[in-house]
Amino acid sequence: MNVSTRRPTSPGAEEILGRYFPVLDHGFVALVDYMGTDQCIERAARVSYGYGTRKTSLTRGLIRYLRRHLHTTPSEMVEFKFHCCMPMFIARQWIRHRTANVNEYSGRYSLLPMLFYTPSADQVQTQSRSNNQGRSGEALSAEQYEKARALWETSREASSAAYRWLTGEQVARELARIDLPLSTYTQWYWKIDLHNLLHFLKLRVDPHAQWEIQEFGKVMAGMLKLALPLSYEAWIDYDVCGARLSRMELDALRKLVSVEGGGLRARAGQGLEAGALEELGLARREVDELLNKLLRTDVPDFSLDVASARPAEEFSERFARAVPSGEPEPNDP
Amino acid sequence: MNVSTRRPTSPGAEEILGRYFPVLDHGFVALVDYMGTDQCIERAARVSYGYGTRKTSLTRGLIRYLRRHLHTTPSEMVEFKFHCCMPMFIARQWIRHRTANVNEYSGRYSLLPMLFYTPSADQVQTQSRSNNQGRSGEALSAEQYEKARALWETSREASSAAYRWLTGEQVARELARIDLPLSTYTQWYWKIDLHNLLHFLKLRVDPHAQWEIQEFGKVMAGMLKLALPLSYEAWIDYDVCGARLSRMELDALRKLVSVEGGGLRARAGQGLEAGALEELGLARREVDELLNKLLRTDVPDFSLDVASARPAEEFSERFARAVPSGEPEPNDP
Amino acid sequence: MNVSTRRPTSPGAEEILGRYFPVLDHGFVALVDYMGTDQCIERAARVSYGYGTRKTSLTRGLIRYLRRHLHTTPSEMVEFKFHCCMPMFIARQWIRHRTANVNEYSGRYSLLPMLFYTPSADQVQTQSRSNNQGRSGEALSAEQYEKARALWETSREASSAAYRWLTGEQVARELARIDLPLSTYTQWYWKIDLHNLLHFLKLRVDPHAQWEIQEFGKVMAGMLKLALPLSYEAWIDYDVCGARLSRMELDALRKLVSVEGGGLRARAGQGLEAGALEELGLARREVDELLNKLLRTDVPDFSLDVASARPAEEFSERFARAVPSGEPEPNDP
Amino acid sequence: MNVSTRRPTSPGAEEILGRYFPVLDHGFVALVDYMGTDQCIERAARVSYGYGTRKTSLTRGLIRYLRRHLHTTPSEMVEFKFHCCMPMFIARQWIRHRTANVNEYSGRYSLLPMLFYTPSADQVQTQSRSNNQGRSGEALSAEQYEKARALWETSREASSAAYRWLTGEQVARELARIDLPLSTYTQWYWKIDLHNLLHFLKLRVDPHAQWEIQEFGKVMAGMLKLALPLSYEAWIDYDVCGARLSRMELDALRKLVSVEGGGLRARAGQGLEAGALEELGLARREVDELLNKLLRTDVPDFSLDVASARPAEEFSERFARAVPSGEPEPNDP
Repeated sequence: MNVSTRRPTSPGAEEILGRYFPVLDHGFVALVDYMGTDQCIERAARVSYGYGTRKTSLTRGLIRYLRRHLHTTPSEMVEFKFHCCMPMFIARQWIRHRTANVNEYSGRYSLLPMLFYTPSADQVQTQSRSNNQGRSGEALSAEQYEKARALWETSREASSAAYRWLTGEQVARELARIDLPLSTYTQWYWKIDLHNLLHFLKLRVDPHAQWEIQEFGKVMAGMLKLALPLSYEAWIDYDVCGARLSRMELDALRKLVSVEGGGLRARAGQGLEAGALEELGLARREVDELLNKLLRTDVPDFSLDVASARPAEEFSERFARAVPSGEPEPNDP
Repeated sequence: MNVSTRRPTSPGAEEILGRYFPVLDHGFVALVDYMGTDQCIERAARVSYGYGTRKTSLTRGLIRYLRRHLHTTPSEMVEFKFHCCMPMFIARQWIRHRTANVNEYSGRYSLLPMLFYTPSADQVQTQSRSNNQGRSGEALSAEQYEKARALWETSREASSAAYRWLTGEQVARELARIDLPLSTYTQWYWKIDLHNLLHFLKLRVDPHAQWEIQEFGKVMAGMLKLALPLSYEAWIDYDVCGARLSRMELDALRKLVSVEGGGLRARAGQGLEAGALEELGLARREVDELLNKLLRTDVPDFSLDVASARPAEEFSERFARAVPSGEPEPNDP
Repeated sequence: MNVSTRRPTSPGAEEILGRYFPVLDHGFVALVDYMGTDQCIERAARVSYGYGTRKTSLTRGLIRYLRRHLHTTPSEMVEFKFHCCMPMFIARQWIRHRTANVNEYSGRYSLLPMLFYTPSADQVQTQSRSNNQGRSGEALSAEQYEKARALWETSREASSAAYRWLTGEQVARELARIDLPLSTYTQWYWKIDLHNLLHFLKLRVDPHAQWEIQEFGKVMAGMLKLALPLSYEAWIDYDVCGARLSRMELDALRKLVSVEGGGLRARAGQGLEAGALEELGLARREVDELLNKLLRTDVPDFSLDVASARPAEEFSERFARAVPSGEPEPNDP
Repeated sequence: MNVSTRRPTSPGAEEILGRYFPVLDHGFVALVDYMGTDQCIERAARVSYGYGTRKTSLTRGLIRYLRRHLHTTPSEMVEFKFHCCMPMFIARQWIRHRTANVNEYSGRYSLLPMLFYTPSADQVQTQSRSNNQGRSGEALSAEQYEKARALWETSREASSAAYRWLTGEQVARELARIDLPLSTYTQWYWKIDLHNLLHFLKLRVDPHAQWEIQEFGKVMAGMLKLALPLSYEAWIDYDVCGARLSRMELDALRKLVSVEGGGLRARAGQGLEAGALEELGLARREVDELLNKLLRTDVPDFSLDVASARPAEEFSERFARAVPSGEPEPNDP
């Protein structure tokens, strides 16, 4: 339902407002409200009177300047509110971002849905050896994957059975839920300002983040691209595809590149083997990190497929159907 | 300029959006953007799908329940953005509320206006003896007030002259400003969520707050009344006109009032002199505090006179005119 | 190991520093570091030079004054660091207190212990009808409890089996863990200032909090009593055993009690039935809430049994033994 | 006064605890309390039991890894409390760092000292043309400086006279102060965790910060070097002497340097003039910024001269002497 407003309005944000974008097997992200536009960042930076507009090229220049120099307070003047549904192990990572507002569906007050996240075959990979907390890229065999699924099924049936029986016996919900798995879906309203959202997204679309939360991050980055195209572009250029270089890394580059006549020039014949880099003070791991920063990488494109949105009711009904009826079911243990 | 939006919209907030309300002699408050309505608080509390509405009486009941029980997270889901102009001694109190976003006009980057706050005759009062940090209610004599004004005038002329001369000599603005008085007006964009705004307003419309910041608080409370009438009413009933009672104060009341048959009854013949109250553990000062809580007080009404708003341009021009021209003036010292 | 320091030191905090206090069946709380004493709160409030001391009675008066008037910034000047171990469903409630610093044991990086919380028979109660999110006080029958335990056992065996097999197959830990139940124990370092700790404890020792987190809150309140006896006493008197009264509740009391001659007096013959209270603007639920505030209640005593502390090694070894060996076990499914 | 503690203790922090280091003409910084050491950062990162120690080289490696990868939560586990005295225009910049705890000397409650900051001749410089908010490096002439001092003197005499007269007439202090200049000294207790302190110091020792706050930052950086030598070193290497490079800047370097055989090699004959850099997407200003990042710079050394500390009493007495006596002075206007 459209109404009239005198507030600054983003056409891209309006396009997706209230639409539910699926993530993983049962999750979603929806933008339910927003405050501010790219232009509002400039207005805040200039402490402007009224809503006068300037040329987009000037706004773009200012936004890029602010981001590059970490003048982040004007970007705190834009706010987004999301409705999100994710497995609890993801919720536990997400909530670590403290500068946000959260209202989560309460398992003390309400019955939880028996909806569990099942990773797809390509995602069930072995532990990475280089990234101590992630996966390796090597999927299990089809046979192993079937075994994993069977184990999950057994475990979830047992958990659900306990939950159904306990809630059927009117046991307090805060206790009935304690054996539900971390793969159980929960949902929340989540509100955050642009500065903190960009920080969240930078960390969560990063390949070192758990793949499942990356999936949420990508959808939200796509929303950002629609809502605030100039801020999105600056974030890609200065954050996502930028890098922090240490004193030692800059020293290494200074040995290979000279500043000459207002430009840069490669120092002919200069090279630095791994050993030479370590002599500059880089630890062995840092040598690899430096090489990786200098390898060419693709610019990610988080464009959102707006057509993939589904109506709120679809998720609301799926959630409602998955909640135990409250009556003990005939074939419960 | 009105545009169409799918966002939840508050008619009361739209009415005042972008209008500048004068405060003190040169200051103002304007609501420049907002996100959310009373209904959005309920939606967040229920983690609702979509924007369906419920009966206002149910929303009111929930909002009052939440406020009474300090379930404050749903009220964090509403956000306000203000443009404010105030003397620096007020800005220094205001900024102590840390859970807010601020962009202040920069005296390092820009020239400051020679606009200074002058208290009116009735406000120049002696130091209070009961409230160690406030004023007494006793104004100075007319003669004393004239003397005060003359001192201020001398001091401001000297400060302005120094600023004009220094900036005329191209001295860095960050240094030229250091002798401007705390009464100099500054301005900022200030964004805050409802939960923190209510906390700010509770403290700042309180009679113990400095009178000048109360004036700002009252205007903002009036804006709140228009934007979120149910939240405003709950705030008046549970915060502004409520009180915290200590264990000792409750013990005193228990000696005077009994709980009987689902109601309350005064215990005939019971009384507690000051000494008896101290025996219950109240310090002398606490006895007075308790009596004050039990004296009848008027319910404040922060209704805003919408007709008092002035266009942004009026303030913007006043501010611009008061900025030194940058050229040394002929009659500068 | 004792060393010498010039820092302000709390004898009570030193007594328990580094000692591990058991909570629930496998959890614990230990105070691992602290900064500040009751006297430091006064020093901050006075912006004192050096560490001079004043009479305890004056410090007590100031601390009580500050707490009563919600002048909370001086209490932010004291800091506590805890090492805590709790079931994940408790960790999820705990983490909602955002103004704290947390380092949690990582299930992406490390193997998790197969330690699960099992509620005792008296705690497995039915859903409360009055408190929509808590338990009723009515425990299950012995037979029902046995059934519940059997269901938990089945579910935990299935979850553990999945975790053991998946980690044995070198599946990434971040995925292997997703079917572990919310009753699995996790642990973290948690650091918080006194102001926020008192807020946390107020909410978490409250009978409306989930019983399991109350158990943690009570131990921490006991630590507080030892570390900062004056702040603890003020918190009991003004927060734990105090109450917030609304405008309508105060109006009711004003009808029953008069302020006379520097004291209070019950108004003879005055009474307010439930209906009369509702006419004053109290909702039906608020009438009950008011009566409860005026019923006499015991002052809780959170004294800690220091002798119940156990050495860190005991928990560290229990945790280590419960972590899967990483090798597929012979009788795994 | 030394006492015994079981807390982790930093010898470097103990050395300076409670010593007052002068900054500017009347200001100071003193470390009045601290919690944690470099080793505590590792303990938090590992969620360690007890206080066992590891080899310093391992702790150093972990601290550098954490800082390099912005794993900042373990550094939030260390806390510092300072007593600082600075001019109000500096206090207004300082307070913008919101994630800190503050207790400021109250001008509503207490009389303020007539102590004002006077910049030295070399610091009164013209506005910078490149840095829009700073000074140029060009000092005023001796004659101009004398003129500036004379203007300041006149202005301060007028301000002080007003303050003395108003407070002598018992005018409320909250009003009497409003014409004191921004150069008036104030003081506060300021507590902050290491993560936020490093962020504060990075911004405030930066040459773009106002010189006066840099002076405070340098002293605090020196305290950090003593208290947490490993964290200080990592901060210098990864933050102070590091740089953020954008996508376009990295693309430029990729054209000049190749990754070969585990090391780096300058691409012979390759150069990028300013125009070529702009074609890669750098704005003109960004070209200069890039060249500056690649010019060799000295590593700053913030070592503190411990012998420069003065006893607390010296400042406390200076402050007390500068407070108006409260009696109208004979030669007051």
